[in-house]
Amino acid sequence: MDKMIAGIEMTPLKHIRGDAGDIFHIMRSDAAGFKGFGEVYISTVKPGNRKGWKRHTKMTLNLVVPFGKIRFVLYEQQTGIFQEVVLSPEDYHRLTVPPGIWMAFQNEGTEESFLINFASIPHDPTEAETLQLDNTVIPYAWS
Amino acid sequence: MDKMIAGIEMTPLKHIRGDAGDIFHIMRSDAAGFKGFGEVYISTVKPGNRKGWKRHTKMTLNLVVPFGKIRFVLYEQQTGIFQEVVLSPEDYHRLTVPPGIWMAFQNEGTEESFLINFASIPHDPTEAETLQLDNTVIPYAWS
Repeated sequence: MDKMIAGIEMTPLKHIRGDAGDIFHIMRSDAAGFKGFGEVYISTVKPGNRKGWKRHTKMTLNLVVPFGKIRFVLYEQQTGIFQEVVLSPEDYHRLTVPPGIWMAFQNEGTEESFLINFASIPHDPTEAETLQLDNTVIPYAWS
Repeated sequence: MDKMIAGIEMTPLKHIRGDAGDIFHIMRSDAAGFKGFGEVYISTVKPGNRKGWKRHTKMTLNLVVPFGKIRFVLYEQQTGIFQEVVLSPEDYHRLTVPPGIWMAFQNEGTEESFLINFASIPHDPTEAETLQLDNTVIPYAWS
């Protein structure tokens, strides 16, 4: 990837290991990237599977992957820029995606992977557009 | 358990299964049980391990277990009431714990289990008390 899409942010987060178990930070109300709270939910993706494409008109997404490994593909239709990000517990970051960006994601591991989306507004099907994974609008070849 | 601790709530949440992966609801800003957002984080507990005890003076906890199986033990010191709750993806609920209740938890499964705490205030070590798992204050026999 040579170019970056404006507004996409990667924020390093603490993953604190302990004898009995770990702590993974996700979001605080006083974090620099906090844009309000609307809904938080989990989306899982099975090995060999993908979900997408979706483009929100209002929602800002904040994505973490505490279990498994997921490749996110982001596409800004106006500029034609693609950006790819891989998240996992081993490289624990929060990926912030502003409204207006197409996104799809693929399991890159061998187990069912979990993403948590801390979203700025509650789920509202009227504010999101969807396209099938294979379509004639987004020139992306899955591998 | 004959008695219940006042203020402990169990809210059924949607777990929507799909071919490519699942969706687990956690919290919405317009949910009946929403008491404000301060921080959201994950705490994991390894097989055969426990974490606790902790009692918050200000934080309301909202706990879900999307992976694994965890037994929560809640103790109201004033009344001497214990209450136990087991959460897992197979019995997907949000457990709400108000301030003032001692809590500890134990992995009940064979894999590392994950809880997500959607908390009403950000982490603040000065508003929580802790006790070791074995102590002389809380008369609980772990099994």
